[in-house]
Amino acid sequence: MRSLSIAPEAFRRLADEIADLTANYLATLDSRSTFPPTSGARTEQLFHHPLNEQGLGADALKALHDVVENSRVQNGRFFGYVLGSGEPVAALADLLASVLNQNVTAWRSGPAAVAIEHTVVNWLASAIGCAGFHGHLTGGGSSANLMALAMAREARTPVNESGMKDASQGVVYASDEAHMSIAKSVALLGIGRRNLQLIPTDSNFRLIPSQLEKAIRRDQAAGKIPLAVVANAGTVNTGAIDPLPEIAAIARANELWLHVDGAYGALASTAAPAIFAGLDLSDSLSLDPHKWLYQPLDCGCLLYRDPTHARKAFAHTGEYARALSNDPVEGFAFFEESMELSRRFRALRLWLSLRYHGLQAFRASIQEDLNLAQRLASAIAQHPRLELLAPVGLSAVCFRYLADTSKTDEQLNLQNAEILKRVLQRGRVYLSNASLRGKFCLRACIVNHRTTEADVDSVIAEVLEAAGGL
Amino acid sequence: MRSLSIAPEAFRRLADEIADLTANYLATLDSRSTFPPTSGARTEQLFHHPLNEQGLGADALKALHDVVENSRVQNGRFFGYVLGSGEPVAALADLLASVLNQNVTAWRSGPAAVAIEHTVVNWLASAIGCAGFHGHLTGGGSSANLMALAMAREARTPVNESGMKDASQGVVYASDEAHMSIAKSVALLGIGRRNLQLIPTDSNFRLIPSQLEKAIRRDQAAGKIPLAVVANAGTVNTGAIDPLPEIAAIARANELWLHVDGAYGALASTAAPAIFAGLDLSDSLSLDPHKWLYQPLDCGCLLYRDPTHARKAFAHTGEYARALSNDPVEGFAFFEESMELSRRFRALRLWLSLRYHGLQAFRASIQEDLNLAQRLASAIAQHPRLELLAPVGLSAVCFRYLADTSKTDEQLNLQNAEILKRVLQRGRVYLSNASLRGKFCLRACIVNHRTTEADVDSVIAEVLEAAGGL
Repeated sequence: MRSLSIAPEAFRRLADEIADLTANYLATLDSRSTFPPTSGARTEQLFHHPLNEQGLGADALKALHDVVENSRVQNGRFFGYVLGSGEPVAALADLLASVLNQNVTAWRSGPAAVAIEHTVVNWLASAIGCAGFHGHLTGGGSSANLMALAMAREARTPVNESGMKDASQGVVYASDEAHMSIAKSVALLGIGRRNLQLIPTDSNFRLIPSQLEKAIRRDQAAGKIPLAVVANAGTVNTGAIDPLPEIAAIARANELWLHVDGAYGALASTAAPAIFAGLDLSDSLSLDPHKWLYQPLDCGCLLYRDPTHARKAFAHTGEYARALSNDPVEGFAFFEESMELSRRFRALRLWLSLRYHGLQAFRASIQEDLNLAQRLASAIAQHPRLELLAPVGLSAVCFRYLADTSKTDEQLNLQNAEILKRVLQRGRVYLSNASLRGKFCLRACIVNHRTTEADVDSVIAEVLEAAGGL
Repeated sequence: MRSLSIAPEAFRRLADEIADLTANYLATLDSRSTFPPTSGARTEQLFHHPLNEQGLGADALKALHDVVENSRVQNGRFFGYVLGSGEPVAALADLLASVLNQNVTAWRSGPAAVAIEHTVVNWLASAIGCAGFHGHLTGGGSSANLMALAMAREARTPVNESGMKDASQGVVYASDEAHMSIAKSVALLGIGRRNLQLIPTDSNFRLIPSQLEKAIRRDQAAGKIPLAVVANAGTVNTGAIDPLPEIAAIARANELWLHVDGAYGALASTAAPAIFAGLDLSDSLSLDPHKWLYQPLDCGCLLYRDPTHARKAFAHTGEYARALSNDPVEGFAFFEESMELSRRFRALRLWLSLRYHGLQAFRASIQEDLNLAQRLASAIAQHPRLELLAPVGLSAVCFRYLADTSKTDEQLNLQNAEILKRVLQRGRVYLSNASLRGKFCLRACIVNHRTTEADVDSVIAEVLEAAGGL
């Protein structure tokens, strides 16, 4: 008998216990505080213990209650970051995914898993009007953006006189509202942060195309090589959608790679396609099903028009991993188009969740989120003590409390940071923050399939209550 | 009522169904074929269907049986790749992780999750003799290696005359048996594949230190800048462990960053510390708990001596994500030390699995794997028709069938590729392949907590049976 073996009946008892724990947790979700009554000192005390030499057996599960009681809660009053609400049918698939433990490197290593990943990627591409794009699931938008820019670099960096590719004169463009992963990617790829040109945005936080053109001209004149432009389909701060058709035209005219960072917003085009016109003009596109398809973490997606570029950037096959088949399905390997080698069966949750509920229910839920955001924005705009700080095109609502119109931005920033702290401590709603042109914003983002009108209305009530104590 | 809502009782029934499905699957694991009776055409037919507009409800779970029946099976006779066997207690934790859906970016976003990740990273570091190292969990060895080399580049690339960092003259060294993720990382980082110098290995597939020194001298003389050396603690092909103390001394003398790629092997130092002497001399170190701690995918780990270098490479904090606390625990954010932003609660499975079984059981299981590999290697060495192609220091066994001693390597390569194909089709054992100095190897790797002596003995029986039909 092997040292880690566990009898089937013992596993079954543990599985029943976990099923109970999760079902009970979900049944109490709505009544829970959005942030647990805990502290750094408390989590240190509970969880910083030495590893036991001897197994605790089923007793080890007892401490899962401490985990639950010291976790942030995603009920309908969670409006933090841009983070999907964790659709629970999808969560069930994760148990099976981990038991099957398919390594989704290649068909040979996980036949059903590879086929299902292809299927869900096709579904996502079709749902947003990009049928025919290829792609794969990723750990999230950050790694999708990184891989997209790696593809752009390989596709667009000219070979220099010694036959080597040199990206050090290459320039990547993005708006000044681009996600921090763009700057991190450009640095990681060795293009150099100085070669990321941030283009100004208009009053709606959308990239200004004429400014992009100007920057390209200036860089071309200076002997630099414009490589790629990153357009936002939903900025992380305000949900602004850059003018995709205009940017695509500039990219085409100047032979730039067009990457659309749609991690926050692009999946909302299933519900509201008109505002996303131009998604299909991109060379590559990042999506995050763990945002606006409500999937549990982690589940990002990278789409691209032409897999040749993915292969150029990522195919370095090691002998041990080479497929033994000439069949195009059986010979397929994700690691030829991705920086990942070992890959979890992320597609199972998405496949099960989408089939269980059907696409229509997801489309409806996204529309409900969009409507709830408008409801919140209107209420803020109408309130004399609150100021809406950005238009609400998707579901991110940036605002602040105005104690007094004579206050400077600096004073308001300090006050609103204090309000946020108090709101979080009160535990009734969970907000996060953003900074827009020097103004500290309270930010409520609705990518939450549990949020109701009453939940949204409690945002204003809580902010006013917290502000009242100042 | 929101469109995606699901009643608590409905969730409970689905959870019970998934618990049953997984328990029944595990109970039948040993009797299953290691590769399912499927084909590319079959998986296309089963899984390439359009997405349903209307939800299928609980009926959606029926197709999970097709998923199970078209998945590779990790019973005791799975010896493919270097892939852990998916400890099932850990798998249970994944259901809770997905239901809690903590985003392990920062303490504020997942208090228990961040504390537990710190704890398991400390456990891993201590277990391999690197107490005091910092780190975080990753998607696997590939991303850990990428981040380690990004840190090396930031730490070691001199600032040039214009104040910019330029890695284009930098050189990274690794043995000619290094994992393909090293070449992929060097390319991705823009260091350039031409600047990856592969150092020859000895007859045991270990990097030859004098050759490393020679290469450094040559590159220094040519005006290049030696940046980093990657040493293997278990090469993927044969499990060779490079001479770490000698390499560390050369790295120190030449101010090179020392990264140890221990994805396959380093966790085995919990059972056999002597053969891993020198791990603690590294600047950074990759581990894969989803290999030799038998965890379900994905669960890699990057350790590093000095978090300053991780912050230099990865801290680009966006305002929206900035922690609001001055408390060192509550203010901690993984994204300041990692290229990842959104992060799954990977630590929960490892924490539960280690506590359930205790470290001693893992140590014993790794020792059992090491012993089984020796048993297989001895049997191969003693068999007149089989040839062992590399020493077995860990648990990877590379060998081939020798039909006839007059055959050329080329003939033997073709024959053994055919044997592998037949072995896989027979479905009794799952092997993979490797190439060692032009020789095609059958490769059995034991990182499997279910493998018994009888399972190992079936490897030879199956290979001989498959060869008999040639």
